[in-house]
Amino acid sequence: MDIIVIGGNGLIGSAVVAELSQRHQVRIAGRAGGDLVCDIKSDQSIRKMFEKAGNVDAVVMTTGTVHFAKLSEMNPEKYEIGLQDKLMGQVKVVLIGCNYLQDRGSFTLTSGILAVDPILTGSSASMVNGGLEAFTRAVAIEMPRSIRINCISPTRITEAESYASSFRGFQPVPAARTALAYSKSVEGLQTGQIYCVHG
Amino acid sequence: MDIIVIGGNGLIGSAVVAELSQRHQVRIAGRAGGDLVCDIKSDQSIRKMFEKAGNVDAVVMTTGTVHFAKLSEMNPEKYEIGLQDKLMGQVKVVLIGCNYLQDRGSFTLTSGILAVDPILTGSSASMVNGGLEAFTRAVAIEMPRSIRINCISPTRITEAESYASSFRGFQPVPAARTALAYSKSVEGLQTGQIYCVHG
Repeated sequence: MDIIVIGGNGLIGSAVVAELSQRHQVRIAGRAGGDLVCDIKSDQSIRKMFEKAGNVDAVVMTTGTVHFAKLSEMNPEKYEIGLQDKLMGQVKVVLIGCNYLQDRGSFTLTSGILAVDPILTGSSASMVNGGLEAFTRAVAIEMPRSIRINCISPTRITEAESYASSFRGFQPVPAARTALAYSKSVEGLQTGQIYCVHG
Repeated sequence: MDIIVIGGNGLIGSAVVAELSQRHQVRIAGRAGGDLVCDIKSDQSIRKMFEKAGNVDAVVMTTGTVHFAKLSEMNPEKYEIGLQDKLMGQVKVVLIGCNYLQDRGSFTLTSGILAVDPILTGSSASMVNGGLEAFTRAVAIEMPRSIRINCISPTRITEAESYASSFRGFQPVPAARTALAYSKSVEGLQTGQIYCVHG
């Protein structure tokens, strides 16, 4: 398969690339470049990436920014960061990518455990992750040309030690183990699934 | 209790008003007026409502617009309608209302069954509802002064017959039955709950 991993230079992304590149042609896309340049906030940038990419069977997204702050320090503008980046960024890749992916291709999005298991300062992340998962279930039933879509919900990654203090009591999961869920989404045949890798 | 029902003139809202006004002081707020005027898209309008309202123990929201269209006809602007209205509108009422509600007060939001059980044309509604539910779980753990927050997920209301063709196979629920979940949220003591009234 020809696979693009948007955010493939990140902690989860590079583990996904390592897993999938054993069996497939994998290209990394990122804001700052890689094999392909893609800023998921920009329709134009996404379209350009697909035009340049040629044949694509699967797009994996391990990318997206949200703002972490206590509820008392949040305001609509800070929620907007996550809505426009992690949520609508991934949605835009799906909306545009639908026109470029091969028949029976797939999208794999990334949400996160905070959708169901919240922490202090995480209300925007929770909102965005919950929106992404419901979106995934919904568009799976409307996808054209047998294109599939799934969403991975990772927990705190073992290697991301700086997040440990925010996730006390959460069982961390190594990036390589988390990457297996992306493999299942890309190389399996299910659609509309939320694969939780919650340790 | 002093209760405001934003959207209290709607199908669900008026059933909630009927239920709660048997035991409480209930005021209706709406874009076009009622006892109080409130456009949930506007911070200023929300703040004005609370300033005018005086003592408030509970705010119920049975309001919010999303755009329904096939995935092939959706674009980022159409998703933005639901994000800015039903999602961020209710979120703004919470963010601002936190400063006005009495200690041990409560917010009751409205999501909907499409968060978990999608239909054709409903991808924006699903996204928004999923975001609202995860937001509710998240902010419940950060609320000041023992303020509570819950979210009701209604299915198709029996009286909303024009929606029947979009919800084939869904068991409809009468508005008065759905209103009981709002009563449980306002008059009970739980927080961070999603009360599903899915028939």
